[in-house]
Parts: sequence; structure tokens; C-alpha cells
Amino acid sequence: MKKISLLGATGSIGEQTLDVINSYRERFELIAISFGSNIEYGRKIIQQFKPKFVAVKEKKTCEQLKLEFLNEGITFSYGEEALMEAAMLEEVEIVVNALVGNVGLVPTLKAIEAGKKVAIANKEPLVTAGHLLTEHARRYNVPLLPVDSEHSAIFQCLQGENPKTIERLILTASGGSFRDKRRDELDGVTIEEALSHPNWSMGAKITIDSATMMNKGFEVIEAHWLFDIPYEKIDVLLHKESIIHSLVEFQDTSVIAQLGTPDMRVPIQYALTYPNRLPLTNTKQLKLWEIGQLHFAKVDFNRYRALKYAYDAGKIGGTMPTVLNAANEVCVEAFLANQITFLQIEELIEKSLSRHDVLPHPSLEVIQEVDIETRQFVKNLIS
Amino acid sequence: MKKISLLGATGSIGEQTLDVINSYRERFELIAISFGSNIEYGRKIIQQFKPKFVAVKEKKTCEQLKLEFLNEGITFSYGEEALMEAAMLEEVEIVVNALVGNVGLVPTLKAIEAGKKVAIANKEPLVTAGHLLTEHARRYNVPLLPVDSEHSAIFQCLQGENPKTIERLILTASGGSFRDKRRDELDGVTIEEALSHPNWSMGAKITIDSATMMNKGFEVIEAHWLFDIPYEKIDVLLHKESIIHSLVEFQDTSVIAQLGTPDMRVPIQYALTYPNRLPLTNTKQLKLWEIGQLHFAKVDFNRYRALKYAYDAGKIGGTMPTVLNAANEVCVEAFLANQITFLQIEELIEKSLSRHDVLPHPSLEVIQEVDIETRQFVKNLIS
Repeated sequence: MKKISLLGATGSIGEQTLDVINSYRERFELIAISFGSNIEYGRKIIQQFKPKFVAVKEKKTCEQLKLEFLNEGITFSYGEEALMEAAMLEEVEIVVNALVGNVGLVPTLKAIEAGKKVAIANKEPLVTAGHLLTEHARRYNVPLLPVDSEHSAIFQCLQGENPKTIERLILTASGGSFRDKRRDELDGVTIEEALSHPNWSMGAKITIDSATMMNKGFEVIEAHWLFDIPYEKIDVLLHKESIIHSLVEFQDTSVIAQLGTPDMRVPIQYALTYPNRLPLTNTKQLKLWEIGQLHFAKVDFNRYRALKYAYDAGKIGGTMPTVLNAANEVCVEAFLANQITFLQIEELIEKSLSRHDVLPHPSLEVIQEVDIETRQFVKNLIS
Repeated sequence: MKKISLLGATGSIGEQTLDVINSYRERFELIAISFGSNIEYGRKIIQQFKPKFVAVKEKKTCEQLKLEFLNEGITFSYGEEALMEAAMLEEVEIVVNALVGNVGLVPTLKAIEAGKKVAIANKEPLVTAGHLLTEHARRYNVPLLPVDSEHSAIFQCLQGENPKTIERLILTASGGSFRDKRRDELDGVTIEEALSHPNWSMGAKITIDSATMMNKGFEVIEAHWLFDIPYEKIDVLLHKESIIHSLVEFQDTSVIAQLGTPDMRVPIQYALTYPNRLPLTNTKQLKLWEIGQLHFAKVDFNRYRALKYAYDAGKIGGTMPTVLNAANEVCVEAFLANQITFLQIEELIEKSLSRHDVLPHPSLEVIQEVDIETRQFVKNLIS
């Protein structure tokens, strides 16, 4: 029985993780969950899975649920402390970090310290503090299991291989909602257009990040940390069908790729069953003969400037990726609130990066300071 | 230093194996070679690599070379005995079987008995006596390392995976020289047309086998034996670019594929360096953005009947694959000698299979008898 703590249970990745756990109740046991504002769905999860520990965001929610689930032997807690406790519970073997935003960083560090395997879907901590997370994972000899489809693909391709023989990692990119538009056609695109992703159904933030390709930029930085590969050896390849989820080229020019129909439960389940696999129910088998064609193209960094900024920020390192992430988060929120245009997202990020004096190898505190300071800077630009 | 015996040194695979060995003289040592009628190239190999043991086909060749290389400390021998000796030499660690035809079967069994790793490019023994070879390899706990690009691809995809979680093997097929022709257009095609393969430069026999897709049929049977997978779980996928060399689908619907530009030195070198990899010199990196598109289509068994016969013969098992191979060999020779038409290849194979009374789990002797008998039967049909 694999005992699981799921942080961010009510989000998109959380929901799909629960689906995987539910299909193997004899193998997986949900020990703890955390969630934020979606109390209705959180309540359903508690009823269905009866976790022993529930961490919520607000004290009010905590008190309310305590009353509802009286005498069921469930411990309820709230706030950051609760999240950390959920990540460190004695009997938990694997922590699934399906949180969104930098809030996932400290719980992940705590989970690692407690010797838990961490299945990580939470991008921001890897982007802003990849050096801290990976150093920590090495020190405590704990595996960081990627849940993102691209990183899971690379992770799968690397099984049985010597990492020293890697020549390049090749992350595929669908190109997002505006992939068929030229740069000059991006002026005046609407929120609705930006939110209609051609291949994946995801949250609003990540769908906008796909449209700007900042999402791919974050993935490049994540791949750098997860697989300890220099940026010069990480490529992005446009592949509009999202069937090849990523590839690894080895020194002998042999390329190993992972493919499948777009279904996040595949990487989620792989992280939970690693190094083994289990049948996945209710999913579609890949039928290449029905798809017929796969397309590939080079990425134009002038067309996708956010990707260029991400490479630059990653290569500079230090606090630069924190600025990238914070500025992007504020910009995407502002775009979704109709306060800035789509192209202003890139412009404001560029401004934030170019005015920042980078600090090398930042501590958690420095990262948090730079994060706050950058958000304020961008907000001032907007208002 | 990995000490190598190369059987079939002057053929296409032999030549490319020598190229790999030559690029890593500090890692690989050519201890023994065998060759048949291409004495001129054989002589060059001896001069360049100075093997300790040389097996040739004819006594005459043996005597001649002995005189030419007097006092060089090289042992020359001839005939089947010599081939077996080359496969069993004490100091050899790995035997590369690059022979063509069933002549490679006994030396491979002997190499296995002598505890050698066997890198096998020689198709016919796996097709006709896959049960004997794989039983033998299991008994002597010796790895059979595939050299064919498709099987090497599958072998690479399976590294780090649990074979029990395999759902399907998917062998890709270029479709051969006549892939753009309908069946009714195959009537009257010429030898020259049949010999112009769109992707790979190979010997005449295998190029015709690609045009009929009997080659893919053989590969299905080889895959069955090499990976211990039932025929129902082995698919063939038309993929005209030959960039994806084969794929493995796992139970969780995740698909792992191996890709590369068509270069046989990749699988050859992988077999020699397995489980590690080494840089491959003078080859082309795969650039998917330059290729732009990959195409896939279902195989029509009515269009490619030889493939259907191979599946049938494989499933029936016993001596049936021996009949398939023997009939095909005689037919291809006859086609290349302008004695039969292209479509008659399939017809005569079908006749040979349907009149054969299968013998289950045949011994080496039975296989050889059926082989001879089938060849005679087909020759009688032709003349």
C-alpha cells in the first residue's frame, strides 16, 4: 500500500491524481490532502477518501469542516503550518505537490527533509528555487518525480540510460492558442481567444502561459534542474499535435521519445507507480495510423519572446528566474482582468528582467523578497 | 577492451561493424572474422585489423591467404568448422553475427554455448529456429543483442522497463520500393524498380524483401522470439520516413519510441556498447524541424500478403516459418534472375505454406530437412 499526501487536491492535477488513486484503492491510500477555496469539492474528497489529515487555507473553513466531520477521526488544520504538516506526516511515502504558485516551495523542502518521495507538478518552486530543491533532494537522497507531461516524458526516456550520455533534451511545444498567428496578428487578441488551447484542457493561468510560451520557458528551467542539464543542451521543438511529449537525444545520435494521447493521468500515475507501470483505465490508446501525420517546426524566438526571456533568465540564474516568474504571474492576472493587452505581458516581463540586479544562489528569504518586490514593481507599471 | 568476433565481415552489416570498431580501436579489438567470396575486401580487413583468426568459405581461399600472410601470426581456417571456431574462440567476449541465411544458425548456437554475447543481425536463424536460439540463450544465460534497426529500437525502448508491462510492440515499416503502388499496379514491375528502396541502402535480397514486406514479416517473427511477446501484441505500422524505428506501448498507454536518421551503425554500436552508449562519429543528427512531417498509416494485409503469410506462419509455428523463409529465398533469387514475376513471389510462398504439414518444435535436423525439401519444391514449381 503506497501512502499518499496530496497537496492541492481540488485543482486540475489534484482531481486527476484522485482519479488515479481511486482506480487503485488496493494499492494507493490517500492519507492527507490540502486545498484552498474550493470547499465544496474538498468536502466531496473527504467523504470519498476519508483521509486522516486535511489541511485547508482558512481557519474558518477548518472550523466548519471539523464540525461537519465530527467523530470521523480526521485531523483538520489550516494555514501554512498545516500545509507543511501534510507534507511531513510520518506514515506518508509520497507527497504529490499539485499546488499552484510559490506557496508549494516550503512544503516541498519539508517533504524532502522528512524523506518523502515528491511527485512534483508545481512549477514555480522549480523555476524560482530549482537550486534549493535539487540540492535538498540530493542531500536527503530523495527522488523528485516529475508530473508535467514533458518532464515525465524525459524521465521515462532516461530509464535504463546513463545520464552522462545525454546529448540534448528536446521539449515539445504545441505552440498554444495563437500558434497560427504571426506576431503582428497578436495585437488586440482577446482573453477568450487566448484561453482556447488546441490540445490540452488546463487552468487559465497555464493556458495563457502556453499562448505566450512562457510555460515552455518555465519547463526549460525545470528540465535544467530536474535533469541537471545545461541550457545549451535543452531545445524546444514546435509539435502541434502534442503526441510526442518530449525526446532525449543521446551521444550516439539515437533519440528516445515518449508518446501518447494527451492525458495527464499518464504522468501522474507513472510518478505514483515508478519505476513500474500499471494499466490505466478509461483512457485512449495512441493510434498513430488514425492521427496520420505529426508536424514539427523550429521555434522562432522573435515570435515567442517569453521563451527567449526564460532561456536568458535561466542562464543568468540566481534571482532572475524569480523575477521572470513573479512578473509573469502579475502580468497574466492583469491580462485576464483586462488591464493589459496580450503583448504587454512580454513587454512588462522584459522591463522587469532588464532592471533587476541579479543575486547569485539566493536563499529562500532572498527569493521571497525579490518575488514581492517584483510583483510590486509590475503592479506599479500597470496601474 | 571488448574482444569481438565478426561473422560475415564483408557484407553490408559487417562493413559497418568494422567502421564502428575502427572508430574505437582503444575499446574494441577485432579478434576473428569470417567471410565468403569477397576475398579482395577480406584481405583489406586482415591488413587493417590484423585479426588472430580468419575463417573463410573455401579451402582454396584459405591456402592462398595463408601464403599471403605468412609469419603474421594469423590462423586461417575454412568451411563450417572454421565458422564455428570463430564463434567460440576463448578470448572473444562478443560475437557479431552479420551472416546472411541459415548458415548462421549453428555458429550462433555454438557461440551461446561458449558463453559469448551475441549481437545478431542474421535474420534467418531467428525466423526458422527462434525457439532453439532463445531457449539456448536462456539456458546459458547469454544476451541476444538485436542489431536490426527495428529490434534495436524496441530493445532500447525496453531499457529500465518491466517486460510484463508491455502492451504492444509496434514495428514501423517504410513500405518498400512499391509503397505508392496499388496491388494491381504491381503486375509487371521490374527488378530495377524493386531494387530502389526509398530510405535504406541495403543488399538486393533484403531490398526485395522490403518491397514484398516479407522483411517486416520476418521482423515480426524475430520480435516474437527476441522479446517473448505473442503475435497478437505485435503490430506493423506504415511510416514512410523511417525516422521512428519502432515503438513500445505499455499498459498505461505510454508509448516509448526510438528515432534517428537511417544509419545502421547506431544499432550496431549500441549492441557493442550496451548497456552504455558512445558518441557516434560521422553521422547525421536527427533534425525533426527539418524533416517537418512524419506520416503513419495502417498496413493493408491484402496489399502486403507476404506480411500476412509471415504472421500466419509465425502463429502456427513449428516448421512453418522455415517453409516461409526457404520458399521466400528461392523466390527472391528467381525474381532477381528474371525467372518469375514480382507477384509470383507471394503466390509461390502461399503454395509452399498451404501444402506443408507442420511439425511442432522442430530440432535443428528437422529444420534443415524442411528447408531443403521446401527449396526443392519451389524450384520444381519454377522450372
